[in-house]
Amino acid sequence: MQRFEAYLKANLPTVETFHPHYNDSLSAMLLAGGKRFRPMLLLSVVEAYEPLLFEGALAPALALEFLHTYSLIHDDLPAMDNAPLRRGFETLHVTYNEATAILAGDALNTEAFYHIAKAPLRDDVKIKLVELLARDGGTYGMVLGQSIDLHFENEPLTLEKVKVLHINKTAKLIATSLLMGAVIVGLAKAKQEELYQFGIDLGLLFQIQDDIIDETQSEEEAGKTTGNDGDKNSFINLIGLDRSMEEAEMLAQNLEERFNHFDEVLQKALYDMMKHYLYRHRS
Amino acid sequence: MQRFEAYLKANLPTVETFHPHYNDSLSAMLLAGGKRFRPMLLLSVVEAYEPLLFEGALAPALALEFLHTYSLIHDDLPAMDNAPLRRGFETLHVTYNEATAILAGDALNTEAFYHIAKAPLRDDVKIKLVELLARDGGTYGMVLGQSIDLHFENEPLTLEKVKVLHINKTAKLIATSLLMGAVIVGLAKAKQEELYQFGIDLGLLFQIQDDIIDETQSEEEAGKTTGNDGDKNSFINLIGLDRSMEEAEMLAQNLEERFNHFDEVLQKALYDMMKHYLYRHRS
Repeated sequence: MQRFEAYLKANLPTVETFHPHYNDSLSAMLLAGGKRFRPMLLLSVVEAYEPLLFEGALAPALALEFLHTYSLIHDDLPAMDNAPLRRGFETLHVTYNEATAILAGDALNTEAFYHIAKAPLRDDVKIKLVELLARDGGTYGMVLGQSIDLHFENEPLTLEKVKVLHINKTAKLIATSLLMGAVIVGLAKAKQEELYQFGIDLGLLFQIQDDIIDETQSEEEAGKTTGNDGDKNSFINLIGLDRSMEEAEMLAQNLEERFNHFDEVLQKALYDMMKHYLYRHRS
Repeated sequence: MQRFEAYLKANLPTVETFHPHYNDSLSAMLLAGGKRFRPMLLLSVVEAYEPLLFEGALAPALALEFLHTYSLIHDDLPAMDNAPLRRGFETLHVTYNEATAILAGDALNTEAFYHIAKAPLRDDVKIKLVELLARDGGTYGMVLGQSIDLHFENEPLTLEKVKVLHINKTAKLIATSLLMGAVIVGLAKAKQEELYQFGIDLGLLFQIQDDIIDETQSEEEAGKTTGNDGDKNSFINLIGLDRSMEEAEMLAQNLEERFNHFDEVLQKALYDMMKHYLYRHRS
């Protein structure tokens, strides 16, 4: 985590320009904390199997954080969730203006791929990473999920469709974080697929827990705007708080079983991150 | 051109989804005509030197059109230029809404890199293409230019700074289109650099001519919202119409001289596109 934070700080978007807040607007949300969940997933897989590739894996890990951060900046825009607060900080369109927030997101989206291209990894590995990030972080994943979320915000979907929504909006980028790690270290296809599917369900769990937090915590506790899911297709609104908590617990137990069948090195590398999510229902 | 149009139509973003207008919103601006100037530059360089690589070059050419189209969609947003019309068609935020337009742009931005990753080209070539497109189409190019343009829209810049603006906003993506073609066919570094610098000045010429069109043509003639550059750092507003036309002519003559020193195959491949820009001052 410290190594990633240091790498992030050393690789913030920096351009020599007379534009007074261009660099600040691109860096602000990257510096506004966050759990670095996606980079940590990728780096944990690499650390587990090929610690010598850790250095090379920092750039794709950064790419994941750039892509994720751009999505937060755009999701918070007035035309979308209209959120004034994110990670405990003022959102970009509040600090500056909408155009600045749109452009900062655009820049981070594109720059994610720049960092993969420049990573000290094999070309065939990098091309696969570009493909996976572009697939799950764009048209065929994250953007589709956000589009479904917004289009149906006043129209209740079936539970099945809400799962499709969140698999695309959240789970695919989490799953691809594990998969990108697996590609970097060259895991066999079957193990890649196992990790990816684990990531999909982990992402779903993540989203249900997020909905529960949104329902039960104040803005100060959560560090972001909460309680604004009133008209959204959240799990809470569809199946209620109790069933959402049950669903989260079942999913966590199922994931725990699968986790216990991972290679020991991988269990060890992921344990600290996973216990927070998989064992939350026990606390 | 026909081959590119056919390839574009066969590779429009298509996702199986219950979202009623997701696919349409991503494809609309891609289908709304346009000169395909950037793809044609790339493909002309490839056609000139390695016609056998033409098939493989279609995907990176498509990536350029995706990236360019995303930038138009976002530039037209209410928070930016607030344009109701583009290429003679209603803009996306008018047809649907702002969120849809933002997301369609986001998707096309990311998907550009997906198409490069999937192209039937060597991995080392593809990684270089990703790097160049991400560099000149993002933080260090196009987005910087658009940010400068918006931030200084009510504050006149020096001519020097306006050139920096347009080199970033417009010229770098045009230059990189030529450069990407040069990378695909493996031209020597010196020739790559020569083409890139030619593209930078061509992009500047392009922009000055665009400003002149904006000043002198109606919306019907130009096929887009015109006459709204009143408070912008256009060349017209800075140095007036006459000097802008002089500047365009000088630049065109200079470019023509350099063009005449290109390899004959390249002159031949680019001629039909170039004559429209380089010889416009003679008509």
